[in-house]
Amino acid sequence: MLRNLSIGDLTPKEELEKRIFNLKKKMEKKGVDLSLIIQNVDLFYFAGTVQKGALIVPVDGDPMLFVERNADRVRYETPFDFIPIKRERDIRDILRERNIKGGTLGMELDVVPVALYERWKEILGIYNVVDISNEIKDLRLIKSPFEIEQIKKSGEVTSHVLKKAKDVIREGMTELEIDAILGAEGRKKGHQGFLRMRGLNQEMMNIYITHEQSCTIPSSGDVPIAGVGITHAIAQGASMNIIKRNIPVLLDYGGGYNGYITDETRAYVVGVLDELFKKPYEIAKEIVETTMDFAQEGINGKEIYERAYSLVKKAGLEDYFMGHGKGKVGFIGHGLGLEINELPVITPRHSVVLQEGMVFAFEPKFIFPGRGAVGIEVDFIVRKHSLERVTDAPIDMVFI
Amino acid sequence: MLRNLSIGDLTPKEELEKRIFNLKKKMEKKGVDLSLIIQNVDLFYFAGTVQKGALIVPVDGDPMLFVERNADRVRYETPFDFIPIKRERDIRDILRERNIKGGTLGMELDVVPVALYERWKEILGIYNVVDISNEIKDLRLIKSPFEIEQIKKSGEVTSHVLKKAKDVIREGMTELEIDAILGAEGRKKGHQGFLRMRGLNQEMMNIYITHEQSCTIPSSGDVPIAGVGITHAIAQGASMNIIKRNIPVLLDYGGGYNGYITDETRAYVVGVLDELFKKPYEIAKEIVETTMDFAQEGINGKEIYERAYSLVKKAGLEDYFMGHGKGKVGFIGHGLGLEINELPVITPRHSVVLQEGMVFAFEPKFIFPGRGAVGIEVDFIVRKHSLERVTDAPIDMVFI
Repeated sequence: MLRNLSIGDLTPKEELEKRIFNLKKKMEKKGVDLSLIIQNVDLFYFAGTVQKGALIVPVDGDPMLFVERNADRVRYETPFDFIPIKRERDIRDILRERNIKGGTLGMELDVVPVALYERWKEILGIYNVVDISNEIKDLRLIKSPFEIEQIKKSGEVTSHVLKKAKDVIREGMTELEIDAILGAEGRKKGHQGFLRMRGLNQEMMNIYITHEQSCTIPSSGDVPIAGVGITHAIAQGASMNIIKRNIPVLLDYGGGYNGYITDETRAYVVGVLDELFKKPYEIAKEIVETTMDFAQEGINGKEIYERAYSLVKKAGLEDYFMGHGKGKVGFIGHGLGLEINELPVITPRHSVVLQEGMVFAFEPKFIFPGRGAVGIEVDFIVRKHSLERVTDAPIDMVFI
Repeated sequence: MLRNLSIGDLTPKEELEKRIFNLKKKMEKKGVDLSLIIQNVDLFYFAGTVQKGALIVPVDGDPMLFVERNADRVRYETPFDFIPIKRERDIRDILRERNIKGGTLGMELDVVPVALYERWKEILGIYNVVDISNEIKDLRLIKSPFEIEQIKKSGEVTSHVLKKAKDVIREGMTELEIDAILGAEGRKKGHQGFLRMRGLNQEMMNIYITHEQSCTIPSSGDVPIAGVGITHAIAQGASMNIIKRNIPVLLDYGGGYNGYITDETRAYVVGVLDELFKKPYEIAKEIVETTMDFAQEGINGKEIYERAYSLVKKAGLEDYFMGHGKGKVGFIGHGLGLEINELPVITPRHSVVLQEGMVFAFEPKFIFPGRGAVGIEVDFIVRKHSLERVTDAPIDMVFI
């Protein structure tokens, strides 16, 4: 029945088994006897389901998926055997029966709240806990061919919306109206409904329509442009700002398909482009094209940033690059996958050597205080000898 | 400038001061010297802003709001003095300068991840930490007249969408298509963009279109009906299910205005209602009406549940009430405010005496495995001598 209601493939068994195998290798290296996975995204990554449960992976045994509700759904979604339980406490008894003791427990300490952490230590009777979130993030960094297929389908949703925007954006509309129409366009095309971002307070709408002044107010998130929102309670996304001629409208759209996120931005202009934005737009385009010319497996993310920055400097646009003042962000690209803030981060601050299968959003943007912003964001898959674009949407500015 | 871009009032100064005063009273009672508020919703509740920062409340001094980015925006949003900082570490120096030592620190341990908790203890140099999340939830339980005003505006968005659905839902459409259209309707009307739900893995779309079999599959969340979603990676909300005649389509819509959430459900039927759903629908309606007849300040939530349940029993519908099998939930109502899972919970498991200013969603629903579901959800404000409806949308089933 679920097959008929949903779109999107289940994660293949071999894929899940390989991920668990790789997790165990990392656990062994770190001296972790048992891992407890409870965050829904990690659970999906390792077990293929987001249903309420807990995955316990012993370093030297088979994974055990404990499920509290909804066994039918889990049975359909996961290829693993799973153990229905009534209460979390049952897990302790089952582990004892199986003689699994576990000296050191690995948990996702970057996302698990303190109260839950305390409860789980008590349930399992294990008090020596280490953080395995970095190990998990490392595993998730390289995308498999199956994952890249999902990302490309997510890119189709994004591409559709980016192309459709030409028929929607008009002078005099509010950002909010455009958001509503394009949001519906993406959803009809199969958008999963929302995007996930890892960590406390990490919230991300899947569409940002920004324009002129609304582009230029820093947000609470570590992103160059997030809009101001229609309320300070949310403080991101479209506002009541009205679209004016000659000033770029930025559409930053986050596709979502079968869990996988894409994230691209295009600039649209009603009329002709105001002089202020011409050079920065050309530089943004040059940065994207130059990067595509040289980046591939083996290149360091630092070098990508630095070569981009040298183009920015040559044009004298440093003050506006990736924000202004305190709103500046320290990166030009970020990893994408099941969450929108994955590795790698393309920044001068960390060294990261690109490997085949990494996927990242690359977003040279220029923000001019009070005046507006311009830029491009495209998603790349790292290949042996190139960067492959995720979507087929042209990067050029669109004139309306 | 922000004034022109946004809708929705800023939280008045007196209101924020009163909340801080009440927090201090709770801290005093619990023996907490200093509270650290970092979750964005609590920060919004106490300081009026969701911008990246940390609010420190000494039990016997003025609150200090530390802000890392975006001072301009915070200045507009909060009436409090705030302290711009470069790094979180600066906070420690400032506290020392002010001779604030703090023996016992209160933190939101229900949501703050372990890694952040460890970092903050070190930043502040305070290692004796207690959980103040229950105190905060208790404070947020009673809504002020200002908050109720926001909730009513949120209700206007909800009401608009519930009424509009009659013109949208048609035989042969997918749930997804209806979702896209009604989602856009709400957004255009000023929906804030997303809903917040407290806790790890707590995710909630703001619209659930469910129908027939998609109503009947339990979700990972503690909700009676969440839909199956178009992908198992999200597993909630609209699916590819096609609307058929005579079977209810449920529209569960979460309004959001200025942070405040409303949450109502109506049933729509293309054609005539299938016999199976007639009695349960009448009982759901009777439960809502009966509850409105007797509930008011002073009544226990337990009694509300029990009186509802006696109507269910009289009709012999126990097996279908609020889910079936393992998908059953143990409540008939839940609190609403800045998050969709606030207090009070209307359940036979806990005693809660209603007080004026509590706001809750009340949702008698019946789920028939494989066949579909029917029910009503309305939001109530508790008054001295009555329950006041939040929206003006009629509760009757809508025939199309």
